[in-house]
Amino acid sequence: MRRLQATLAETAEATTRLLDDWLAPVPGPVGRLVEAMRYGTLNGGKRLRPFLVVESAALFDVPRAQALHAAAALEMVHCYSLVHDDLPAMDDSDLRRGRPTVHKEFDDATAILAGDGLLTEAFAVLADARTHPDPAVRGELIAALAAAAGPEGMVGGQMIDLSPERSRLDLEGIKQLQALKTGALIIFACEAGAILGRAPKAARAALVAFAGHLGLAFQIVDDLLDAAGSAEELGKPTGQDEVLGKATFVGQLGMEGARAEAEALIEAACTELAIFAERAEVLRHTASFVLQRRS
Amino acid sequence: MRRLQATLAETAEATTRLLDDWLAPVPGPVGRLVEAMRYGTLNGGKRLRPFLVVESAALFDVPRAQALHAAAALEMVHCYSLVHDDLPAMDDSDLRRGRPTVHKEFDDATAILAGDGLLTEAFAVLADARTHPDPAVRGELIAALAAAAGPEGMVGGQMIDLSPERSRLDLEGIKQLQALKTGALIIFACEAGAILGRAPKAARAALVAFAGHLGLAFQIVDDLLDAAGSAEELGKPTGQDEVLGKATFVGQLGMEGARAEAEALIEAACTELAIFAERAEVLRHTASFVLQRRS
Repeated sequence: MRRLQATLAETAEATTRLLDDWLAPVPGPVGRLVEAMRYGTLNGGKRLRPFLVVESAALFDVPRAQALHAAAALEMVHCYSLVHDDLPAMDDSDLRRGRPTVHKEFDDATAILAGDGLLTEAFAVLADARTHPDPAVRGELIAALAAAAGPEGMVGGQMIDLSPERSRLDLEGIKQLQALKTGALIIFACEAGAILGRAPKAARAALVAFAGHLGLAFQIVDDLLDAAGSAEELGKPTGQDEVLGKATFVGQLGMEGARAEAEALIEAACTELAIFAERAEVLRHTASFVLQRRS
Repeated sequence: MRRLQATLAETAEATTRLLDDWLAPVPGPVGRLVEAMRYGTLNGGKRLRPFLVVESAALFDVPRAQALHAAAALEMVHCYSLVHDDLPAMDDSDLRRGRPTVHKEFDDATAILAGDGLLTEAFAVLADARTHPDPAVRGELIAALAAAAGPEGMVGGQMIDLSPERSRLDLEGIKQLQALKTGALIIFACEAGAILGRAPKAARAALVAFAGHLGLAFQIVDDLLDAAGSAEELGKPTGQDEVLGKATFVGQLGMEGARAEAEALIEAACTELAIFAERAEVLRHTASFVLQRRS
């Protein structure tokens, strides 16, 4: 586990360096926009999604620099969604990773535009030859990311999350919501590795199935942390689900039941990796790590 | 001019049909998001940008169906920017094209997500093989649209538009602002035709120069309409620039000076089309049309 955390930290740093390069400061009034984009991305996130891209790509011997580009693009999309999600019109959150959210540090308009800019830039990164020399591969990544981030994926999930039906969702409904809201990008993370590596269909399908289980487990752990974790460790307020009257895995299954469900999902996720044998050791450890995370 | 208007209307309809296809209604809570995306796009805009894509592409005998796909993608980006621009945190506009704006008809959160969804979907359209069979061409379109819509383009311009310096901009500053805010997408419109048609460098450069002048003239006419036009004809409140204390072309040059500048720009724009000889007749008429538009 300690070795995994070192590898995670290394990839997180490499991703941050690349984001820092792509989002280089500019002078003038546009500078404030780029500052907000940087603030929303260069803030010490865990970079779990980039790590999944890099480790999935490593299964197919994809050059690390290529995988990191796809990882940076995905992280831009993840961070844009957080910036918009935190807005007063959405979740109205003042705190993210222990710091004021982008609209608190800047202002609402700047946060809206910074999110828009990050989403746009993500596609610029994927369209860049450094992501992959073959434009067909880049195109496949772009189509997959757009599908994962669009109405049939992440923004669709955000919409359900804000809907009046949200508080009345049953277990199946919560699963569907989370499959879109957080699952789609986590699936893209692993699928991106397969796309970059022109993986055989079966390998790609295995990674998608792995990521599907992992994403759901990740969200259940999120619910558990929100219900039981400390605001200090988490870097954001806890107990928010209950305050907002959101139906959660914990609400449906109880703490112990949710914990058991997450464990079962991680086991199912790891089973999907069988075809990669010991090559998928890091991904298996990552799955265990998701179960044990405290923030 | 009447023939041009018929051609414009025809392309507008074809673009709308394609947007209608891409943004097909879906059931369930995500349905409301897609409804908002449809509301923000299928609302009878002039579709000037799609027309420029189609007519620029026609110079190089690009199949019309391909050009329409690029046109629809561009229109999604244009419409997303309007949806976000109209938000209370930005321009706070209640009316757009004679109807309530998206956040008025739905709500702020839905408008934010609908804009995000449209921006995402635009790249899905460009990544689709129906836009062009060659993934390298699609990749070039994506890179160009991302550059035009990102911090070095449209969102950068929106940021300047919201900055405290906005009211004190001189003529050069206003030109720079508009080159980013509206110019970049208009340039992309014409450049997309050249990219789709794998045009020679000189032809592509001529279209970019044409679109640069045209975009600026378009914005000056916008200022003139805002200063003098009627809200009824325009479908949105007029006199807003003065209310908001924004430095404008009209403020800098006066009504007559601004008019003369727009005319000079349209002449310069048409001069750039010389290398296309009579093939560029429709684009030349379009430039004149921009000068004469009343809404």
